[in-house]
Amino acid sequence: MSKPENLTLTEEHRLFGGRQQRYSHYSASLKCDMTLSIYLPPQAEDNTPLPLVYWLSGLTCSDENFTTKAGAQRIAAELGLILVIPDTSPRGEHVANDPAYDLGQGAGFYLNATQAPWAEHFKMDDYISQELPVLLAANFNLSGKQSICGHSMGGHGALTLALRNPQRFSSVSAFAPIVNPSQVPWGIKAFSHYLGDDKTCWQQYDSCYLLSQSTHQLPILIDQGGADSFLPEQLQPEAFCQAAQARNWPVKVRIQPGYDHSYYFIASFIEDHLRFHAKHLG
Amino acid sequence: MSKPENLTLTEEHRLFGGRQQRYSHYSASLKCDMTLSIYLPPQAEDNTPLPLVYWLSGLTCSDENFTTKAGAQRIAAELGLILVIPDTSPRGEHVANDPAYDLGQGAGFYLNATQAPWAEHFKMDDYISQELPVLLAANFNLSGKQSICGHSMGGHGALTLALRNPQRFSSVSAFAPIVNPSQVPWGIKAFSHYLGDDKTCWQQYDSCYLLSQSTHQLPILIDQGGADSFLPEQLQPEAFCQAAQARNWPVKVRIQPGYDHSYYFIASFIEDHLRFHAKHLG
Repeated sequence: MSKPENLTLTEEHRLFGGRQQRYSHYSASLKCDMTLSIYLPPQAEDNTPLPLVYWLSGLTCSDENFTTKAGAQRIAAELGLILVIPDTSPRGEHVANDPAYDLGQGAGFYLNATQAPWAEHFKMDDYISQELPVLLAANFNLSGKQSICGHSMGGHGALTLALRNPQRFSSVSAFAPIVNPSQVPWGIKAFSHYLGDDKTCWQQYDSCYLLSQSTHQLPILIDQGGADSFLPEQLQPEAFCQAAQARNWPVKVRIQPGYDHSYYFIASFIEDHLRFHAKHLG
Repeated sequence: MSKPENLTLTEEHRLFGGRQQRYSHYSASLKCDMTLSIYLPPQAEDNTPLPLVYWLSGLTCSDENFTTKAGAQRIAAELGLILVIPDTSPRGEHVANDPAYDLGQGAGFYLNATQAPWAEHFKMDDYISQELPVLLAANFNLSGKQSICGHSMGGHGALTLALRNPQRFSSVSAFAPIVNPSQVPWGIKAFSHYLGDDKTCWQQYDSCYLLSQSTHQLPILIDQGGADSFLPEQLQPEAFCQAAQARNWPVKVRIQPGYDHSYYFIASFIEDHLRFHAKHLG
């Protein structure tokens, strides 16, 4: 394990009275150097302990997309939330990759791969759920309360991480999440490569399955664009709603008419999500 | 002149209840195809006549930077403002260029070039002040009121266009503008190439000079980051303040401590600028 203090600041900008920072660090779980973006709101200037919200991005994204396009920092500044925006996979010339946009670098799916050539580096589950919390606690003044949200593949990541570790999160939200990866092309392709053909190994990374098994009712908010071209084939939020209804779990799923899969959709509703998390973070 | 209806919609996204659009069109002034981004707020859905605000971007930018990074559409949606975001120069393989980032394509400086090889296409002054107003009026329901703002080279563009045509704008604002291009390296280089060595031809594109000659007190707001690395050599807002004081013109120039030259700075204060414009647009 690398020492938790091993974060190198590579960029810093004043933003809404706080600081948008970018760090480089060696990840022991991923066995490569990683880039991490963090927004510290103005309330962090006097070292007040603050809650944090993780943002997990979608296919092809890095830590930059949400940081530059979502407009989330304005609301985080008002609410006193630290935003943590990791990259979407291990990176580097020595890390396995694939020419397709939906496998390999940029497409880590927030799981621990078990199959060659992916198993050596693709441990995004460990990175997000084990390594980053230690690294962040060692470097920032955290209140200990946290929530998580994400988009598309990152919505899948947020929901599965929260459903598997409900005691660690106050709330979870997602934009256009892949809620049922075991049943849709993106998930079937990724899980076959990363986890192999035994579908029982896929269940721990399928939100619909995890919801059907969960005993802890975490607050959940999902927004889905009604004009999202991936909606019918890849996303299928109705599967998640059915799983929630079967458990009598009051999940809030909103279809936003006319909105697509882009960051314009995220920018339009991120304020609702951060206020939802702030309410549950207390 | 191309027909004003000759706008081709190439992209459209729902955003804050309105529409983020991208158009392609042939520009007769620039003699090339141009890309233009427009945000229509929700109030445009029922064809209400609306005021518009032009945004002019800085060196190396296109119509995309402000559109994706500034978070301006949220406020435009609330205030009922149309945002018009042109590209920063003529574009294309047949258009003159230079390997430097501060000359040629991406660096049009919002002027009409008179020198070879630039004079054929580099007529950004005509494009913004003559061609676009006709094109926009033919395609959108406009109230006829408009304001203008911009960043860096685009701040220079906004100030010079407004100071030369004060009857056409309700207000003008700028982030880190090049207010005195005749006296700083960016401006001296660009003006020498585009306008030649006769510095009397430069005056019409120098905000400090125009302010010293103006008889119409247009409302002006300027924000400048205190940690902007271009501040001492290229920007020099104090020259503009002195020119304003000499004319007893109450220009509002704010130095924002710690902020740099990036879009994080713009995002932090664009709300103030759009509210300033909305107030003067009535």
